[in-house]
Amino acid sequence: MIKTVDWSEEGIVMLDQRRLPREEVYPVFETHDAVARAIKDMVVRGAPAIGVAAALGIALGVRNSKAESLELLDQEFETICSTLRAARPTAVNLFWASDRMKSAYAELRAAGSSKPAITSALIALAKKIRDDDIEANRRLGAFGAELLPSKANVLTHCNAGELATAGYGTALGVIYAATERGKKIHVYADETRPFLQGARLTAWELQKNGIPLTLITDNMAGHLMKLNKIDCVVVGADRVAANGDVANKIGTYSLAVLAKEHQIPFFVAAPISTLDLTLASGDQIPIEERSTDEVTHLAGTQVAPEGVEVANPVFDVTPNHLIQAIITDRGVARQPYRQSLADLAKSS
Amino acid sequence: MIKTVDWSEEGIVMLDQRRLPREEVYPVFETHDAVARAIKDMVVRGAPAIGVAAALGIALGVRNSKAESLELLDQEFETICSTLRAARPTAVNLFWASDRMKSAYAELRAAGSSKPAITSALIALAKKIRDDDIEANRRLGAFGAELLPSKANVLTHCNAGELATAGYGTALGVIYAATERGKKIHVYADETRPFLQGARLTAWELQKNGIPLTLITDNMAGHLMKLNKIDCVVVGADRVAANGDVANKIGTYSLAVLAKEHQIPFFVAAPISTLDLTLASGDQIPIEERSTDEVTHLAGTQVAPEGVEVANPVFDVTPNHLIQAIITDRGVARQPYRQSLADLAKSS
Repeated sequence: MIKTVDWSEEGIVMLDQRRLPREEVYPVFETHDAVARAIKDMVVRGAPAIGVAAALGIALGVRNSKAESLELLDQEFETICSTLRAARPTAVNLFWASDRMKSAYAELRAAGSSKPAITSALIALAKKIRDDDIEANRRLGAFGAELLPSKANVLTHCNAGELATAGYGTALGVIYAATERGKKIHVYADETRPFLQGARLTAWELQKNGIPLTLITDNMAGHLMKLNKIDCVVVGADRVAANGDVANKIGTYSLAVLAKEHQIPFFVAAPISTLDLTLASGDQIPIEERSTDEVTHLAGTQVAPEGVEVANPVFDVTPNHLIQAIITDRGVARQPYRQSLADLAKSS
Repeated sequence: MIKTVDWSEEGIVMLDQRRLPREEVYPVFETHDAVARAIKDMVVRGAPAIGVAAALGIALGVRNSKAESLELLDQEFETICSTLRAARPTAVNLFWASDRMKSAYAELRAAGSSKPAITSALIALAKKIRDDDIEANRRLGAFGAELLPSKANVLTHCNAGELATAGYGTALGVIYAATERGKKIHVYADETRPFLQGARLTAWELQKNGIPLTLITDNMAGHLMKLNKIDCVVVGADRVAANGDVANKIGTYSLAVLAKEHQIPFFVAAPISTLDLTLASGDQIPIEERSTDEVTHLAGTQVAPEGVEVANPVFDVTPNHLIQAIITDRGVARQPYRQSLADLAKSS
């Protein structure tokens, strides 16, 4: 398994995804400040992976602390958590992970634990958050594998794989699980402009895991569907509203419309932690706009003329009626999603 | 006007489109072999421009001929035409232009013309094909302009502009004509992976002509349609079958499906020379596959892992039922296309 993000005595080890696929390097981030910078700079990306990196970063900060009293440690702990929470604004897992670390710290302090005891408990919790993510993805993968035919060409978009999580992945987890169960899966991977997560990350990850794939540009998907070369689509999610509307990487919505036109099942793979029951529908999901350079420049080279106006919405929203099923770590939700998702959220 | 392809005594002068938008250079291609290579290597692209380049290239080959008898010239002429016809498979204008040159040659030979007379007649015909293309595009633009609202956001794909023709353009010709008539047109230009004709060429050309535009990645089109930001789609064509099925740049079919889903008119702009009445439907149009490097490398930099399998179909086929109208230089064809296109082909 690819070690996207991991603990070591020297610090947090992360695969530098910005340098993929050309170099596979695992720098060590020795301070919580360095971990926060790495999240900001996209050394690591993918909401679950960012959450795990934050938890490990907080544990590292406590372990590195020179605080000579528990009161001084309290202050330092607050600073550590704030630094990591500020790394990226939208990834909900970042806040979820730091909230879990904060609760644990408060309980340990209330119980009168010593500094060494607090340190080892927080390290253990961060590692558990990491392991839990992998376990959730394996469960999600098992549920999803049942939905795939025994022989299938699966189209995916962006990277919702090991590289987006602590391990195993969500959309790609479904593909790994199906393959482990003897199904013959071939993947069509959208390159996913502008950031090329498909070409750079999904292609690399699938190759490493021995899954046969064909890389395509995003605009080829409809043509391949028309030629009956795609049996189903599986994508991840950045946020799922209570009604089953799904925010995911730009281009996901177009794929869902194309899948409907060709009567191809369109599946979303997302752990329950991606569900946002506070949002009634996808209309309420804010869509981030990123730098125009991502569109006008490729691998550092300018491809569009100077001064051209560019749109760069990072996500789009796929309405629930285009989604055949939402595969979670607690089971498969189907329409009507308001009911099925609420039921899964209540179970555990 | 941009001089996409032109005759000079030294050879065929072409704007090297591979170097746009960063450099605007006009190399001279001194032999018909060099012209064929330039077409193959995409120095010049776009079905009408390729047709004009082929006609000029054939005239150049004859002008350069050292054949000492007309019988030797006959053989050489066949080789010249074959070389140019083999340059690319999908754009029908290449065959259309060389057929016109061939007919003229046969008539000149039958009339007992001398080699110098044949040479100047073929040069004159090639120049006429060039000039006729510009005139046809202006007429096409005038017909198309009437179909656009007085204020419109028009989505286009690839480059069907001045750079794809001898001048004025087809899809962009419609936009230029509408603008000249006082309509307020804003263009959304798909970047058009893998070769980035939208980012490199359409953005450059529209900027040069003062047409407001927003550059987007191909996978953003559906999202923008959903937000009601697109009023209509206008694209060019590489070949139109007798039933109105249209081969055009990969990604065109997906746009047509998305346009249907959002009830947005989808227009194809193509001169009659792009019509291939010998093909009953689009299923019979040969689709060129190009090098995988176009997908795995961007501006010379490798973005996908070594050895990854890639699909790179250059065109797709949009079925006639998704097309609102086909705008030609002889008028606007509507469904049923088998009738309307045949009628336009007969008129002149």
